[in-house]
Amino acid sequence: MTDERVARAALSRLTEPGDPRVAGVVEEVGAVRLHDDVVALRGERELDRDAQVRVARLDPERELEEAAAQGIRFVIPGDAEWPRQLDPLSHVEELQQMSGRPLGLWVKGPLRVDELDGAVAVVGSRASTTYGEDVARELAAGLARDGRCVVSGAAFGIDQAAHRGALALDGPSVAVLACGVDRAYPAAHRELLARLGSVGAVVAEVPLGCAPMRMRFLARNRLIAGLAQGTVLVEAAVRSGALNTASWTTRLSRPLMGVPGPVTSAQSQGVHHLVRSGAAALVTTSADVLEVVGAVGEHLQEEPREPDRPRDRLTRRHRQVLEAVPVHRPADVAAIARTAGIGLLAARTALAHLAKGGFVVDTEEGWRLGPAALGVPQPDPFPA
Amino acid sequence: MTDERVARAALSRLTEPGDPRVAGVVEEVGAVRLHDDVVALRGERELDRDAQVRVARLDPERELEEAAAQGIRFVIPGDAEWPRQLDPLSHVEELQQMSGRPLGLWVKGPLRVDELDGAVAVVGSRASTTYGEDVARELAAGLARDGRCVVSGAAFGIDQAAHRGALALDGPSVAVLACGVDRAYPAAHRELLARLGSVGAVVAEVPLGCAPMRMRFLARNRLIAGLAQGTVLVEAAVRSGALNTASWTTRLSRPLMGVPGPVTSAQSQGVHHLVRSGAAALVTTSADVLEVVGAVGEHLQEEPREPDRPRDRLTRRHRQVLEAVPVHRPADVAAIARTAGIGLLAARTALAHLAKGGFVVDTEEGWRLGPAALGVPQPDPFPA
Repeated sequence: MTDERVARAALSRLTEPGDPRVAGVVEEVGAVRLHDDVVALRGERELDRDAQVRVARLDPERELEEAAAQGIRFVIPGDAEWPRQLDPLSHVEELQQMSGRPLGLWVKGPLRVDELDGAVAVVGSRASTTYGEDVARELAAGLARDGRCVVSGAAFGIDQAAHRGALALDGPSVAVLACGVDRAYPAAHRELLARLGSVGAVVAEVPLGCAPMRMRFLARNRLIAGLAQGTVLVEAAVRSGALNTASWTTRLSRPLMGVPGPVTSAQSQGVHHLVRSGAAALVTTSADVLEVVGAVGEHLQEEPREPDRPRDRLTRRHRQVLEAVPVHRPADVAAIARTAGIGLLAARTALAHLAKGGFVVDTEEGWRLGPAALGVPQPDPFPA
Repeated sequence: MTDERVARAALSRLTEPGDPRVAGVVEEVGAVRLHDDVVALRGERELDRDAQVRVARLDPERELEEAAAQGIRFVIPGDAEWPRQLDPLSHVEELQQMSGRPLGLWVKGPLRVDELDGAVAVVGSRASTTYGEDVARELAAGLARDGRCVVSGAAFGIDQAAHRGALALDGPSVAVLACGVDRAYPAAHRELLARLGSVGAVVAEVPLGCAPMRMRFLARNRLIAGLAQGTVLVEAAVRSGALNTASWTTRLSRPLMGVPGPVTSAQSQGVHHLVRSGAAALVTTSADVLEVVGAVGEHLQEEPREPDRPRDRLTRRHRQVLEAVPVHRPADVAAIARTAGIGLLAARTALAHLAKGGFVVDTEEGWRLGPAALGVPQPDPFPA
């Protein structure tokens, strides 16, 4: 009887990733039985017609050996290193009908893919703007600072910026590819992929040597969403491929987040649409992301605000008088009282209080605004 | 007995706008009685101490005459022109405790303030960015195109851009000021205010000649929110005054909307915070705004998307084969079948179908990508 790992390696060569028929049969009868069936009864199932060409060249044992020689392992369900966060792909009925769990993951790199708890996917347009790349890099760096793994697709644009942001802080990062992990796609990212393979992980569902194809990108996107606890969409035009990763995140019932941008930027339009429709939460910093994906209460942020100013603790009356003191010239108490619309005595009392706090100064020409009113930092005159 | 309008004009001179004590007493005993009481019993109520200086110079009949001579009217509750959307300020208990309905509105300009149904407030930072001003102008123009009145505060930055956007399309626009409507504040907006006063309306709660003061701005903000059906915040730093208008909108239970911007812009930080917290809906265009404020179903937008491409209607199998055709050189059917991972016969059938659609071309050297696959617009080869 065929070994489970060998059967899965063979099936990953024989079939296209994300094919729900394959995943469904594997869940039902097991990979070994499907494998033996395909090899023995070629031509009798619809599935087999696609596979005939591949079956002829099949040698899974040798593929596994050659991969191992290149430091590449094939992680399958049941392995200690299997990332269980992918299991809903087969165990949730709606997801099973659309795709299913991968047969296995070809992994290159020291990072164990079962230790990505709390990983965050940061994805977006290939045709990104400088703004988007800057934000992706900053976000990823912030996540790395929190010890979070950054998952992305190593594509041009947002993806590469996210990986680089994490790597810059020596943070863990995983690239999920639509081609074999021994290939560099895009070729311009050969060095980036080599770096990820030496300090993080490069992962693919398709075996070594496979070329990236459109459908493989779609299947790959479900793994980016599936490996992460939540997905941040940094930039996406209305029809960006990154929206596919966003959909998978939602189907997986995991938090989807979007970074806003100028409404005049086509690259932010898809993100704004998701936020507007309520599908994505708006995030602007890694702290926002951690608040969304973190354990409840773990990363609750304080509302952003500037520190209290002594001015805020003035009474209504005192503020009324302070506002009546002219900015450019001194004024006497009668003029100030008139402008403030209050009596002389009340104005005089208020001015005395304001003078204590440095808000006004009594000069020979009359009352002037003091340093505290002009924004000069002061020791707090009225401690709370 | 004093005339209601005269009493309210007098009280508007005697008191500060937005003072809940004044509004409360007026709702309880009436403006005439409060007026007579203040004038007769000066010095006996706390309120009166503030008012003594003003009472001495009081001449409401003359003020009303002088205003009329300048084409300025004083609109009070009960008038046909009274904008009833301000009534919740006195009739909702929480709002009554904070401020109350204005005693009246000093109005300059041909636009009737009872005819602002569906008006939208567009507000934001004075320290705006070029981006913010562009967006405010565009939004206001879009609202004007829909016949909506644009309400704002005539301040530097977002406010002026909103007014100008509406005026550019000859749309109705209302400026609500913190000073008398006979004054130009800021002075640089003298012409803008003159224009609004001649084709739209300039409105204030404080009488003619009054200077703008901090507290009057806060009271003014509640009127901007109160006159509009909803408020759009275009840019606001974390501590922008525009957030005060936003708070009034929320207190009035009217829709608050925010325009996103670069997360790197301090001027968008306050807006992003409101969207993130759920206080404001994200809007990017006037169509978004109309969808939020419009009658239910009146402005429901289609989801933005590009038109269907013929490629999207290819089957999985056809796309699989199309992806396997090399971009830079021709390939024979065997190579294509091998890359696609399907049988020769199936590949040949698919290529024939693709050729009909212009996706591939059969040349002497082999199969090449056709014009449809290369993005050249084609008559739809496979009508739906």
